Amino acid sequence: MTTPTDSVQSGLFGPLFHGSAMAAVFTDRAHLQGMLDFEAALARAEARTGVIPAAAAAPIAMQCDASLYDIAELGAAAATAGNSAIPLVKALTARVAARDKAAAGFVHWGATSQDAMDTGLVLQLRAALALIEADLSGLSAALAALATKHRQTPMVGRTWLQHALPITFGLKAAGWLDAIERHRERIAELKLRLLVLQFGGAAGTLAALGDKGLVVAEALAADLKLTLPATPWHGARDRVVELGTALALLTGSLGKMARDIALLMQTDVGEAFEPAGAGRGGSSTMPHKRNPVACAAVLAAATRVPHLAGSLLAGMVQEHERGLGGWHAEWSTLPELVQLSAGALAHMAETIGDLEVDAARMRSNLDATKGLIMAEAVSMALGTQIGKQAAHHLVEAASKRAVAEKRHLRDVLSEDTAIMQHLKRDELEKLFDPLAYTGVATDLIDRVLAVRRN
Amino acid sequence: MTTPTDSVQSGLFGPLFHGSAMAAVFTDRAHLQGMLDFEAALARAEARTGVIPAAAAAPIAMQCDASLYDIAELGAAAATAGNSAIPLVKALTARVAARDKAAAGFVHWGATSQDAMDTGLVLQLRAALALIEADLSGLSAALAALATKHRQTPMVGRTWLQHALPITFGLKAAGWLDAIERHRERIAELKLRLLVLQFGGAAGTLAALGDKGLVVAEALAADLKLTLPATPWHGARDRVVELGTALALLTGSLGKMARDIALLMQTDVGEAFEPAGAGRGGSSTMPHKRNPVACAAVLAAATRVPHLAGSLLAGMVQEHERGLGGWHAEWSTLPELVQLSAGALAHMAETIGDLEVDAARMRSNLDATKGLIMAEAVSMALGTQIGKQAAHHLVEAASKRAVAEKRHLRDVLSEDTAIMQHLKRDELEKLFDPLAYTGVATDLIDRVLAVRRN
Amino acid sequence: MTTPTDSVQSGLFGPLFHGSAMAAVFTDRAHLQGMLDFEAALARAEARTGVIPAAAAAPIAMQCDASLYDIAELGAAAATAGNSAIPLVKALTARVAARDKAAAGFVHWGATSQDAMDTGLVLQLRAALALIEADLSGLSAALAALATKHRQTPMVGRTWLQHALPITFGLKAAGWLDAIERHRERIAELKLRLLVLQFGGAAGTLAALGDKGLVVAEALAADLKLTLPATPWHGARDRVVELGTALALLTGSLGKMARDIALLMQTDVGEAFEPAGAGRGGSSTMPHKRNPVACAAVLAAATRVPHLAGSLLAGMVQEHERGLGGWHAEWSTLPELVQLSAGALAHMAETIGDLEVDAARMRSNLDATKGLIMAEAVSMALGTQIGKQAAHHLVEAASKRAVAEKRHLRDVLSEDTAIMQHLKRDELEKLFDPLAYTGVATDLIDRVLAVRRN
Amino acid sequence: MTTPTDSVQSGLFGPLFHGSAMAAVFTDRAHLQGMLDFEAALARAEARTGVIPAAAAAPIAMQCDASLYDIAELGAAAATAGNSAIPLVKALTARVAARDKAAAGFVHWGATSQDAMDTGLVLQLRAALALIEADLSGLSAALAALATKHRQTPMVGRTWLQHALPITFGLKAAGWLDAIERHRERIAELKLRLLVLQFGGAAGTLAALGDKGLVVAEALAADLKLTLPATPWHGARDRVVELGTALALLTGSLGKMARDIALLMQTDVGEAFEPAGAGRGGSSTMPHKRNPVACAAVLAAATRVPHLAGSLLAGMVQEHERGLGGWHAEWSTLPELVQLSAGALAHMAETIGDLEVDAARMRSNLDATKGLIMAEAVSMALGTQIGKQAAHHLVEAASKRAVAEKRHLRDVLSEDTAIMQHLKRDELEKLFDPLAYTGVATDLIDRVLAVRRN
Repeated sequence: MTTPTDSVQSGLFGPLFHGSAMAAVFTDRAHLQGMLDFEAALARAEARTGVIPAAAAAPIAMQCDASLYDIAELGAAAATAGNSAIPLVKALTARVAARDKAAAGFVHWGATSQDAMDTGLVLQLRAALALIEADLSGLSAALAALATKHRQTPMVGRTWLQHALPITFGLKAAGWLDAIERHRERIAELKLRLLVLQFGGAAGTLAALGDKGLVVAEALAADLKLTLPATPWHGARDRVVELGTALALLTGSLGKMARDIALLMQTDVGEAFEPAGAGRGGSSTMPHKRNPVACAAVLAAATRVPHLAGSLLAGMVQEHERGLGGWHAEWSTLPELVQLSAGALAHMAETIGDLEVDAARMRSNLDATKGLIMAEAVSMALGTQIGKQAAHHLVEAASKRAVAEKRHLRDVLSEDTAIMQHLKRDELEKLFDPLAYTGVATDLIDRVLAVRRN
Repeated sequence: MTTPTDSVQSGLFGPLFHGSAMAAVFTDRAHLQGMLDFEAALARAEARTGVIPAAAAAPIAMQCDASLYDIAELGAAAATAGNSAIPLVKALTARVAARDKAAAGFVHWGATSQDAMDTGLVLQLRAALALIEADLSGLSAALAALATKHRQTPMVGRTWLQHALPITFGLKAAGWLDAIERHRERIAELKLRLLVLQFGGAAGTLAALGDKGLVVAEALAADLKLTLPATPWHGARDRVVELGTALALLTGSLGKMARDIALLMQTDVGEAFEPAGAGRGGSSTMPHKRNPVACAAVLAAATRVPHLAGSLLAGMVQEHERGLGGWHAEWSTLPELVQLSAGALAHMAETIGDLEVDAARMRSNLDATKGLIMAEAVSMALGTQIGKQAAHHLVEAASKRAVAEKRHLRDVLSEDTAIMQHLKRDELEKLFDPLAYTGVATDLIDRVLAVRRN
Repeated sequence: MTTPTDSVQSGLFGPLFHGSAMAAVFTDRAHLQGMLDFEAALARAEARTGVIPAAAAAPIAMQCDASLYDIAELGAAAATAGNSAIPLVKALTARVAARDKAAAGFVHWGATSQDAMDTGLVLQLRAALALIEADLSGLSAALAALATKHRQTPMVGRTWLQHALPITFGLKAAGWLDAIERHRERIAELKLRLLVLQFGGAAGTLAALGDKGLVVAEALAADLKLTLPATPWHGARDRVVELGTALALLTGSLGKMARDIALLMQTDVGEAFEPAGAGRGGSSTMPHKRNPVACAAVLAAATRVPHLAGSLLAGMVQEHERGLGGWHAEWSTLPELVQLSAGALAHMAETIGDLEVDAARMRSNLDATKGLIMAEAVSMALGTQIGKQAAHHLVEAASKRAVAEKRHLRDVLSEDTAIMQHLKRDELEKLFDPLAYTGVATDLIDRVLAVRRN
Repeated sequence: MTTPTDSVQSGLFGPLFHGSAMAAVFTDRAHLQGMLDFEAALARAEARTGVIPAAAAAPIAMQCDASLYDIAELGAAAATAGNSAIPLVKALTARVAARDKAAAGFVHWGATSQDAMDTGLVLQLRAALALIEADLSGLSAALAALATKHRQTPMVGRTWLQHALPITFGLKAAGWLDAIERHRERIAELKLRLLVLQFGGAAGTLAALGDKGLVVAEALAADLKLTLPATPWHGARDRVVELGTALALLTGSLGKMARDIALLMQTDVGEAFEPAGAGRGGSSTMPHKRNPVACAAVLAAATRVPHLAGSLLAGMVQEHERGLGGWHAEWSTLPELVQLSAGALAHMAETIGDLEVDAARMRSNLDATKGLIMAEAVSMALGTQIGKQAAHHLVEAASKRAVAEKRHLRDVLSEDTAIMQHLKRDELEKLFDPLAYTGVATDLIDRVLAVRRN
């Protein structure tokens, strides 16, 4: 049997991949506490609405402390019962009974296992979202600072992993930021659907509560500060799966940022670097290396999370009032997904916050193609005087000569009288200023900063 | 080489799996037309803003008709160019040049391939969403009608594929409907993020347009009736991938409905049936069978779509200003996902619209366990008089006797003097009315109908 | 920070979903031990081949006991180092140095982190495969027994969840068995590719060992009883991913069995049942229910495992000599996949071993369509006398009458003189014996039993 | 309704992503032909075994030509029938009947739709595998040539996208090759399981053939040159899904190669290049660029195929004798997966066959870190004289100085008397020859070449 003290490699790999604060939200114990919070609130709500004796609520609530329960024992019982709520309710009832026999009869009154598990999960997810929203806010601020600081830092824009045209590093950061803002919006929207009570009883009708079902449900939702949804959602899993997909979208954007940074951090590029922490990214054999550890963790999350989201989506096909298999597939998958996403987010917030940018290397890499990256700029400028077509032909010919002779395009052009009769030498020089050919990059940065939530 | 007239088994399987109206939105030709609509609007916007000669717009727009181009030729050229826009722009330029040489120089002015492909895609998706929203509205209305009609139709509530407690078929339909309404809300939200222009030029700076970049962008967005986003999103794919995940969520809910209906349609259950169309669901060997063909198509979609969404999520990790591989992975995946989802939606709208419900069989199946399904109801009623615990013990004993003797629980109870001294015979009879033990089912139906969008 | 004593909900859900013996193979501690087994063997191999002093091997090997190391501490260090081997090697070196300074200089000599991690993983997988092969053998034997016992037990064959034609339960079991045998074959084949040494040093050349690289590699492989592969496979992950896909295939077949059994176990069908253990499958609210808990666990695995396999496949795209992200994505995914598959296998071996079969219900369900399921049999028999076409028309008409009048087809036929002039009454009776129309079912069972490995 | 002449964007994107020869294997028409080949062979086999009149075989076989059937019509009918075999058999029967009424009665005799569809699929897959095996053989030969040619071409070995140690390009190619050889082995193994007949009739018992079921099955298998499996496999999908996973493994390895090449092809690295075809990889806006088009196509496949394999795995959970949804999910997924994999393979075979390698740039990139990449080599050499520890300290100090002063490590070392008293100047020079520090790279290449199949 699995021992809860040393399992599933989570002690060794958890700290690398999961958000550290988040880890506390998804322990076995936190899972129990979520359910126990439901049970305590249920007893209070039913006492308040006269469904159970007023005196029963306190003795029940008093035992709703997860530290009182044995995880390994509950885990073993869950393996035969089929879920964790059944043995927990049994154990809770036994603890209450040992102190107040009458109250014990009212534990879990009118509820079903899934009411406790789902509502407990929603409480965990509310805590998780608070952490995630805080980290998103931090990442957003860091990106805004980066975009602002490097508003005028020219660098190579790369498409297909080839040098294309100059951009600014501020624009790259603004593009990352723009996506993050959309993710913040999505999460704000889905919270309204997600943070709801689950309460339906054995078949979703609350039949065991007679005509008091909705009154209890309202009191229970109020106690837990959750919305009361139109109907129970035991078999309708879109609320929780939507969180999975929204975090998968977020992780995709974080993965894109990590891929960019890891590529910039290549020895062959050297334009930006993850912050070097104590011992961070060292190699066991090559002391001169600095490995992009945070990027690796984020990219690992971006590799795994789409499939975890896929699991949740696949599990939605659940049978009738409560299914088998699909729901069970959520239990470990959603926590893992949330933690991986949150871990990736935390890594990226830290990375962006202290990113080392080598603006000089960015500038020198622009020259790697000996001015070819500015050919379009020269051609456009010349075109205003001699026509687009003619300009294009002249510059193209010069470019070919530059490549063939391994010379800088500017030098080749400056010897070309057909061209130099239309351009002054200092004009030509200016055309090779990459910053001068970054179009509306600055405006775009401003547009993103303007829509950013604080 | 693949021939466009007979490929990828789409002629044989498309009609079964894809929404029929939707198929026209995602043909090769519609893909070309999307890009051509971009090119025409770009020319108009640039003429209007003085970036290109006013006279150039019309000759360009005139060639922006997809029926003028040869798909097989463009496909072969795309295989070497790496995308479909490069050869299309070339072909468009050639057609314009043949008629107006000057105008030809201004085709695709300042834009990059991905500007045309992404904006064209957004235009296709706008058309797709119009169809999807219409079908969602129809499905919603059909479900509301079903929930209303069967508000008082009792049936077995099933959990773990076991009989649990009575519910009403109206409640089941209301649960389906509740999820559909959430999907409508999600789609309304994401449309604001999705229906935006893509326009950034080669590196996302619109550098080739000098200081006119944003002015052109605004005119272009207005022409196409799209929102102008804060920045180009060549490498930030969350907008389109979000549509994929939202439709995957929808398909998950549709799959749940299809699973439910297919299970109800089992020969062994026989409670509800897909409408029988001409030749629908016939078997090649067993004439007495009626196969759930629509459910099979929906379940196939629900099997595939999570993985298609996963592909899109995985593809988000794109390099720098424009990546390689991740973007390309979207091209066939998103259309396939949209079509499968739309097909599942169309199937389910039709199925729900004409669902055959056998209320009599629903009623008789409630008796399959010879009254055991009502044991909780009897126990709760008795408990109000003799206490929950005592009632539970008496009913449990009677239930065991009923099982052992293969008799109806009501008959066993009616002989039990310990019980019958507390219950009148007609009271006992009423306790075996399943409808009387469906709790707040009716209220829940009303709650859903109240939140439904018209 | 995550605490290894209570994390990731594995204590509560591990026992339900993971094979119990398997859980010990994939603990944090077992992961460390795998790497330490590599380090000890490396020291021995290098001592034996004269690469390090003979005296260094024993002091190193002595510290290669995972219980000596602190998991939480290593986990925290792994979060900055980027993997678990770097801090482990450091800790190991420190322990050796405290006892034998000279020997400490030869810890991990010439190896890289991934050599230790991959070889350690292979050692874990070897242990895992031994358990899996044993359970496969047990499941195979149980299925063979079931197929043999129910060789003549007729039941409804169902297609599209509709009654189709009679089969035998033995044939159904034989079909399950046939697939299991193929999985055994696949695992036997892949073991030859999987159980190999990983040893290449920092860039896969073993450069730090000068010309002794291959000699050490051979000695090391021999020590660990692993095959020496042609080249190191740091960036070529097909060996381990293949195991993931093979187990995913297996889990798919197990899921199919679980789906079948869960469907047979429906209250509405009642033909076969998971064994009832103590407390197994009880409901918290409905005492008369028996839930298919094992099937739920297997179906949950079958929902999740395809996506875990997908993660591994996606992670294969690793950069150069050692990548970032893709490899890291394997670390928790493969153990989770192996454990879920093994758990599903263990559940199914136990379920099949004690499956409760209700042959009487199987027989009575054959009559649910009042003889229609035998219509084809009657038609075929009649056809030999009056021609296929004529027979078909007569039987079809009788079938329609039977449905319309809600009578048994046999009774309708027995009143039909056009038919009864060709059939004796006892012949007609025999035609409604489902077992008589099960074709070559018995031969097929024998064919499977004949190819089964013992 | 979808029109078969222009659908699903396959004409535009097919040529880029699908293997060109492969496209013909998976057209709608080829799908029909596969089923018709089954029907013709079935008629022959049944005639030969006396199950149907000898005269019936030829008239049936004569109509078994896919070009005789209307795809759009069959597609529309499939949408109501639920699969493509039902309308095809109807159409086939009608054509036979128009010419030979008696023979028409024996079309599809004793078979079920899935027999035709699955066997037809196996026939298509046999053709697909022949193409794939040929391309694998070609790729293997090209890799062997590359490994041989560049056996002594030194280059930077990169881990974590950082410069690590020198390797040879031959070793990199040999690593790729080693994986390809394993894939060839896997495909050879699975063919034995895959290339089998499907033949079971409506419920898998061949009941309609009386006691002739196995005799017909044997004759049919022989006619089609397929193996007769132990049992029909309508609901046991591991045979075909295994092909999907094996090709997904292959595509993962191809994706790894494509990622490597795309990274080497970066403007910032420039060590290897896809062959430049006519118009290949041109940019619409930047004429100086050469885009890695083939790598993009392969990486797109490597992004999508894991999810397509996941779909197939997920679809394995099929109900009873024939399921609904899971099987249907295979129909488009497997062909798409096979074509994407084959397309990736064809791209990579062509890319490797004509790969442009810039050995000079490889050599000069080794110097990018000004000798630091050789620090370990110097340290090891020095260690043999003054001890590992002492050597390490001296070299580390020199390395730091080199970085701080932006000088070449060799120059710094050559001024270091503590070091130079142990090393002659030409010895030092030799230590900076990267080829001298590539360990057993050559042996590893030879090992791979030795195990390669011709």
